[in-house]
Amino acid sequence: MKDFYVADAPRFENAVVTSFFCLSGMSLREKKGGGGQYLALSLSDKTGTLEARMWEEFADAFSTCSEGCYVKVQGQISKYNGKFQITLTKMRNAAENEVETADFQPVSAFPAEEMDAELRAIVVAFKDEDLKRLVLAFLDDPEIGPAFRVAPAAKVLHHAWISGLLEHVLALVKVLKAVAPFYPEVNEDLLLTGAILHDIGKVKELSWKTNFNYTLEGQMIGHISIAQGMVREKVLALQPFPERLRILVEHMILSHHGKYEFGSPKLPMTPEAMLLSAMDDLEAKFSALRREFAGAESAGKKANETTEWVRSMDRNLFDSKRWLAEE
Amino acid sequence: MKDFYVADAPRFENAVVTSFFCLSGMSLREKKGGGGQYLALSLSDKTGTLEARMWEEFADAFSTCSEGCYVKVQGQISKYNGKFQITLTKMRNAAENEVETADFQPVSAFPAEEMDAELRAIVVAFKDEDLKRLVLAFLDDPEIGPAFRVAPAAKVLHHAWISGLLEHVLALVKVLKAVAPFYPEVNEDLLLTGAILHDIGKVKELSWKTNFNYTLEGQMIGHISIAQGMVREKVLALQPFPERLRILVEHMILSHHGKYEFGSPKLPMTPEAMLLSAMDDLEAKFSALRREFAGAESAGKKANETTEWVRSMDRNLFDSKRWLAEE
Amino acid sequence: MKDFYVADAPRFENAVVTSFFCLSGMSLREKKGGGGQYLALSLSDKTGTLEARMWEEFADAFSTCSEGCYVKVQGQISKYNGKFQITLTKMRNAAENEVETADFQPVSAFPAEEMDAELRAIVVAFKDEDLKRLVLAFLDDPEIGPAFRVAPAAKVLHHAWISGLLEHVLALVKVLKAVAPFYPEVNEDLLLTGAILHDIGKVKELSWKTNFNYTLEGQMIGHISIAQGMVREKVLALQPFPERLRILVEHMILSHHGKYEFGSPKLPMTPEAMLLSAMDDLEAKFSALRREFAGAESAGKKANETTEWVRSMDRNLFDSKRWLAEE
Amino acid sequence: MKDFYVADAPRFENAVVTSFFCLSGMSLREKKGGGGQYLALSLSDKTGTLEARMWEEFADAFSTCSEGCYVKVQGQISKYNGKFQITLTKMRNAAENEVETADFQPVSAFPAEEMDAELRAIVVAFKDEDLKRLVLAFLDDPEIGPAFRVAPAAKVLHHAWISGLLEHVLALVKVLKAVAPFYPEVNEDLLLTGAILHDIGKVKELSWKTNFNYTLEGQMIGHISIAQGMVREKVLALQPFPERLRILVEHMILSHHGKYEFGSPKLPMTPEAMLLSAMDDLEAKFSALRREFAGAESAGKKANETTEWVRSMDRNLFDSKRWLAEE
Amino acid sequence: MKDFYVADAPRFENAVVTSFFCLSGMSLREKKGGGGQYLALSLSDKTGTLEARMWEEFADAFSTCSEGCYVKVQGQISKYNGKFQITLTKMRNAAENEVETADFQPVSAFPAEEMDAELRAIVVAFKDEDLKRLVLAFLDDPEIGPAFRVAPAAKVLHHAWISGLLEHVLALVKVLKAVAPFYPEVNEDLLLTGAILHDIGKVKELSWKTNFNYTLEGQMIGHISIAQGMVREKVLALQPFPERLRILVEHMILSHHGKYEFGSPKLPMTPEAMLLSAMDDLEAKFSALRREFAGAESAGKKANETTEWVRSMDRNLFDSKRWLAEE
Amino acid sequence: MKDFYVADAPRFENAVVTSFFCLSGMSLREKKGGGGQYLALSLSDKTGTLEARMWEEFADAFSTCSEGCYVKVQGQISKYNGKFQITLTKMRNAAENEVETADFQPVSAFPAEEMDAELRAIVVAFKDEDLKRLVLAFLDDPEIGPAFRVAPAAKVLHHAWISGLLEHVLALVKVLKAVAPFYPEVNEDLLLTGAILHDIGKVKELSWKTNFNYTLEGQMIGHISIAQGMVREKVLALQPFPERLRILVEHMILSHHGKYEFGSPKLPMTPEAMLLSAMDDLEAKFSALRREFAGAESAGKKANETTEWVRSMDRNLFDSKRWLAEE
Repeated sequence: MKDFYVADAPRFENAVVTSFFCLSGMSLREKKGGGGQYLALSLSDKTGTLEARMWEEFADAFSTCSEGCYVKVQGQISKYNGKFQITLTKMRNAAENEVETADFQPVSAFPAEEMDAELRAIVVAFKDEDLKRLVLAFLDDPEIGPAFRVAPAAKVLHHAWISGLLEHVLALVKVLKAVAPFYPEVNEDLLLTGAILHDIGKVKELSWKTNFNYTLEGQMIGHISIAQGMVREKVLALQPFPERLRILVEHMILSHHGKYEFGSPKLPMTPEAMLLSAMDDLEAKFSALRREFAGAESAGKKANETTEWVRSMDRNLFDSKRWLAEE
Repeated sequence: MKDFYVADAPRFENAVVTSFFCLSGMSLREKKGGGGQYLALSLSDKTGTLEARMWEEFADAFSTCSEGCYVKVQGQISKYNGKFQITLTKMRNAAENEVETADFQPVSAFPAEEMDAELRAIVVAFKDEDLKRLVLAFLDDPEIGPAFRVAPAAKVLHHAWISGLLEHVLALVKVLKAVAPFYPEVNEDLLLTGAILHDIGKVKELSWKTNFNYTLEGQMIGHISIAQGMVREKVLALQPFPERLRILVEHMILSHHGKYEFGSPKLPMTPEAMLLSAMDDLEAKFSALRREFAGAESAGKKANETTEWVRSMDRNLFDSKRWLAEE
Repeated sequence: MKDFYVADAPRFENAVVTSFFCLSGMSLREKKGGGGQYLALSLSDKTGTLEARMWEEFADAFSTCSEGCYVKVQGQISKYNGKFQITLTKMRNAAENEVETADFQPVSAFPAEEMDAELRAIVVAFKDEDLKRLVLAFLDDPEIGPAFRVAPAAKVLHHAWISGLLEHVLALVKVLKAVAPFYPEVNEDLLLTGAILHDIGKVKELSWKTNFNYTLEGQMIGHISIAQGMVREKVLALQPFPERLRILVEHMILSHHGKYEFGSPKLPMTPEAMLLSAMDDLEAKFSALRREFAGAESAGKKANETTEWVRSMDRNLFDSKRWLAEE
Repeated sequence: MKDFYVADAPRFENAVVTSFFCLSGMSLREKKGGGGQYLALSLSDKTGTLEARMWEEFADAFSTCSEGCYVKVQGQISKYNGKFQITLTKMRNAAENEVETADFQPVSAFPAEEMDAELRAIVVAFKDEDLKRLVLAFLDDPEIGPAFRVAPAAKVLHHAWISGLLEHVLALVKVLKAVAPFYPEVNEDLLLTGAILHDIGKVKELSWKTNFNYTLEGQMIGHISIAQGMVREKVLALQPFPERLRILVEHMILSHHGKYEFGSPKLPMTPEAMLLSAMDDLEAKFSALRREFAGAESAGKKANETTEWVRSMDRNLFDSKRWLAEE
Repeated sequence: MKDFYVADAPRFENAVVTSFFCLSGMSLREKKGGGGQYLALSLSDKTGTLEARMWEEFADAFSTCSEGCYVKVQGQISKYNGKFQITLTKMRNAAENEVETADFQPVSAFPAEEMDAELRAIVVAFKDEDLKRLVLAFLDDPEIGPAFRVAPAAKVLHHAWISGLLEHVLALVKVLKAVAPFYPEVNEDLLLTGAILHDIGKVKELSWKTNFNYTLEGQMIGHISIAQGMVREKVLALQPFPERLRILVEHMILSHHGKYEFGSPKLPMTPEAMLLSAMDDLEAKFSALRREFAGAESAGKKANETTEWVRSMDRNLFDSKRWLAEE
Repeated sequence: MKDFYVADAPRFENAVVTSFFCLSGMSLREKKGGGGQYLALSLSDKTGTLEARMWEEFADAFSTCSEGCYVKVQGQISKYNGKFQITLTKMRNAAENEVETADFQPVSAFPAEEMDAELRAIVVAFKDEDLKRLVLAFLDDPEIGPAFRVAPAAKVLHHAWISGLLEHVLALVKVLKAVAPFYPEVNEDLLLTGAILHDIGKVKELSWKTNFNYTLEGQMIGHISIAQGMVREKVLALQPFPERLRILVEHMILSHHGKYEFGSPKLPMTPEAMLLSAMDDLEAKFSALRREFAGAESAGKKANETTEWVRSMDRNLFDSKRWLAEE
């Protein structure tokens, strides 16, 4: 169990602490003014990251620990230029049973069980029994189901936290339920099936055991094609299953990125695929916008200043609500 | 007043009729097998278009009437190759007081007054008094208001019918009211102001007296910049008016096409501009999709066939609902 | 059985013939000089297309036959403006057992069995037993195998003829065997597996029963994703199968179009994927070039003239060999 | 008043000086070898930028001064690694009345009054009285006129100095007067009106009080649409004003960037708009070229070397004249 | 010699005429109402094009004459549907010595000798003796010189008439002389050398003996690379010639299209290359604009209407001067 | 002569050595903890690069030596943080006759004479005597021939080593000989001529005396146009030479980059140009892939990790062979 978190540092100034961290960075540096080397490290948990220094006897630590692993350390907290840091005397690899993943990773603000229950209630209400069977086959799958409830939605961008995928899917499902009635061309059960399964391939595209990363399969196949293959396997297991629904569901998954250059091998051709793709894109944009607004405010930007340039959107953003509230 | 409409032809086969039409096409052709020329015409009203022929004495008609004008004609209805046509004996220009525009142009399926009332009720409920004043200044403007209730939304594409602009705006406002609660970064009054005013420049970009067309100002300035200028004039007249709101409203108008290559001089930077642009684009896409689905069905396409290639979207579309209903 | 082919017309001038054709075009037209309508038709078989006219008693034929069907006709051959045509007195739908597909469709110049044998010999020589099992599972599949030996490679472009897919695959395999030794980074068995399976999805993307066309699944899923799903199913059936090989084979299929805008959801990342994509593209280009050179020559272009503009390559082409031979 | 300028440093080596600067950069750094922090600063005036260090007693200075403000400092000039720097003992904010903007900002090499007089003489010679009234209404406007004579033409790129906008406009007007006679399709008064007003929106898009920056309105509306609104307001005030001229002037302003992706909502359609856009682009390119040639020479590049890569033009540039002169 | 021109038809109604034409179109057509074929032809000379019909005895004419050749015809002028046409009784190929090219091709409005003299006067005034030698070597070349004075500047677009190349070059040289003084970075002799030689490759890229067309070398090498090779050959013949001037002249030629996608292998890097490319582009645009304005007016467009869509510029154009003159 | 190479450092730890190097980097730095400056240098030869420090008496060395020159140095080898470095006591410029280029530059793994012999044997076997004459005229040219055998193929990317151009050309020729038989449209002698000459312009585009760089002619004309000019000169000298071959060879050179945006003024139109361009591109890609795989392995990447992002190909790469070998 973890006794000390990064966020606890102020209460432990000058104290010696022992705790577990994810070793998120490590490099050898030369001491200023000569006289040899020291180890500069970054130690992370779900509450933040702490700079660490190890001035002596670090040869073993350096050769046995590596970035992305859990470590157990002992050291003294101090404050330097207004920031807390820790000077280590010991560091070793942590055994798997010594740590709990939950202590080290950012987690959704919403409990996974609650989100899962809310999502299931929506699925159970489907009128189309085949689509209901299909979606539940995913949610109840002993491997896919639990992974779906835990996986982040991305490595670094939107919803990059534990259960972020479920959080993103649920938000998308809810906004789609609100929008669908305005477009009578849309079959709502089909649309929601697409929404729930569109990113299901991320449970194999990403790994989140210690830190968040892409799997090799993720890099070489991608979550779109992984998901299409998963649907195909499930449909095989659910036979007889209407061929028309299979094609329409696969089409939504393949086309949901909306453009070839974003990795979709097909463009949205049906009302459901078009609506899903548009609202998924909007969710992603607002997710980025939230992150940028929070970042700008915490970086001390004033209400009448735009955010920094947002490369993924090729523009600066502006928090109109904050500006109007100021008046 | 107009006694005979294109749609009435079946009931008048072989009868001689007299009526008013919009002359939507006219050309001289050579008679097959030689022997001189005849006049081939297209006569339109709000119910459709009828092919017409004038075999003799057409010199006056040809030199005095021109495409896009109203004409009064006399002729006999006949059926040829399964289609009705009319053989004219007389045609002359119609005087302005002889015709009512409403008889000749496609019109929204929803009464303009009802749509106007629904929109006003939404505006009256704004919490922000300044935005309410601004929007009402447009709706109550003795020139802009009536034009806004009559204008089409386009020359040929989406909502190309009388009161199509109002219909488009009201649909957009309603879907935005449903979506806005999911995005707490959005100021709803500001968003709806943008939705109501984003296309207001079309009242000067388009002309719809007889047929629908672009004005010269529309071609050289465009509805985006026309609308921005109209807002600026109204704000001058409503002084004092909060400068911040003016900038945010102008920004929504300028950026609502979402991309530079679609004629927006700025990209959406605020939550309201981003949401408005996304949902406006979705409305346009579903409008196109509806038109294509109806066209494919009336052209005899089967449920398992895609539409023809849709150039504006660079793809074929597919009516999933019709296909599923068939099973 | 079919007694008379389009190419036989010169020997039958003025004779009355009876035969089967694919009805590749049909429309009603007005007789010149008035006096009613006639039926203008196009009748095709594997040797070409013949214009047909039906001047009387065509009501039944018109309402019961449709484009893309086989018909039985009776009529008289004549020559008009230097081209042969046929004036029909009878036309009715042909029953399935009256026609043989092979009479109506262009066919590869190489016998399918010989090509199949040549390909199998190459597969049997694979050193990698897993890849050999995988490829043979496709070739021996009771549904996929026969379809693979008959399918065209495209609707209208390269190798648009019966067994064109097999012809294209075999040609690609042979050139890859010649090139692979120059690139030692490449695993040859893996490369050839990719070459044999890269277009296997076309057996479901295309239909070729009467004429060549896209299936609905082909339009909405596409042969790339169809093929990826087929590999996934086969691998399930062949368990245990090395996961690494599965990923590398899927990657080759997904990336073989080489660019996102050509519908590949991934770009080639491995030596095999890169070489396959490049040589497949080269095969397609030379196939186009052959078609264009033949077309230009048969259209009477001289040796020092370029072909017409080739839209798919955005340029004119030039037959250097023909030009040099002329000197 | 300012006694000491950055460019005076060589004459004051080792002397203690007191002066005012614009604080263009400030950050806390750790002393090498440990032992606490120091303040690293950049002090600028119109003659250049001087690095400064403050080793002690900087807490007050750090908390009260901020980047972009004017400061009063005291310190000793020294030379370090061949460059002059200053070690500060005091720094405080300067009061508004202690400084003159002109001391701190780069200024056009041409006196604003002379440029203004030259421009006015050209306007006064207009044959078209309406266009003359329009342009003079801007030049004589008590707010716009003075701002137009002082504003820079950009934040960092071309003519980024006080009165740079006027300098750019005058240069453009003069070259247009030389070119116009070669294009008889062009109405010269109209062309020159466009040239004088095309960038007038920059007086609100930019701020130049201490340093040069974008205003929020500049970022969200942009100088093109700001200018269009300004013309519309002036035209309202000048009624009656010919509607045709208003449309043609607005069109030139809206289209002068020449491409959608450069933020022009319309492409140049008239001879005047086309010529204005082309020559404005050429002015910008030569302005960049001048800056790059000067930069390359001062960086010690030899005459047979190209400049560094110029990102805005996607190429290296080459000073042909300098190279030829060398021979 | 040619006695009758297309433009003379009104004065010869119903007369029988004999004359020479360029056979610009020929096709066999079926007579309306059946009864065999006739020959439909287009006959052109420098004054326009005349429709022709040959109803009988056309077998020889059809097999021996071909499009692009000169023919001698006899026939009767008549008026049909308001347009003149000619009914031929005889047509045969014309011998080379029977026709003069000048009778059949559009020609510049300016005499070639005058333009040549004006250009030479400018060259003779060069201060740089080497550049003067280089340019004169082209103008005095016994093959290149005469071709340069006769060649059109394009097949169909700008200056597509005899001596159009010289006309374009002279116009460009004159506007460059007016503009150059505003850009002191520019070496004027070097700039004018580039202007005179930039399109010199067109003398080999185009053929203009009967009609205007591309040569095979033109299609496969292009006028840019042809010109570069011509300069290289001339420089070899003029040794010693300064290497620096050779590189700078070649660079101007290679880069004058300004963009890679327009076939320039290099982008303009020197002041001269940049100015040449910009003004050459402007000349081309105004040339298109003149053609479009004239076309719109002769097609009966009103002053307040834009031209048709101009594909090469992706926009409609508008003749502002004509519109203003109307008021 | 050079006694000590960078790769010899381990055997000379703590010894004082004297040797020649290419000075590949030099900068003044401040000593840590204050106390003045020192000189930080990089010394290179064909075996690698060694970091050097000069703590005292470096004023002369600094002012007389410059990057890219050869230097003679004396100093002591030591090991610091696991890496060897050298502390200099002397450094001066080396005279030209003191060094041999071959000691300092990376060199092809294949002897130039052997590659040259292999290439010549292929040329001598040409059936086309004219193409044989043309190619030999280049290989036997007293200036071009030797340069072609020594030149690198690029400054930093593929085959950036001495004789890299010849190595690249020979590899391309060999793979083309293997591929050509599959494309009967191709004239093999013509194809190989294109392969041998396509990059011949690099002998003037690059300089490789000490380090590899672009010449000014290379930057302003480019190797494509330089090569085209060289062919034109050789053809002049070989008259009579078939014009058709000249055009086809020039076309291959001009089009071999395959796209306008890569600097080709023409796209490949002939079978030979198309095949050459495709296989040249493949060679370049595999060259990059080899470099990236080697780099990833030496950077400690594991077999299941992709390479870093490869900007020139816009993707990560993956060494499938290494991964499969690991199993």
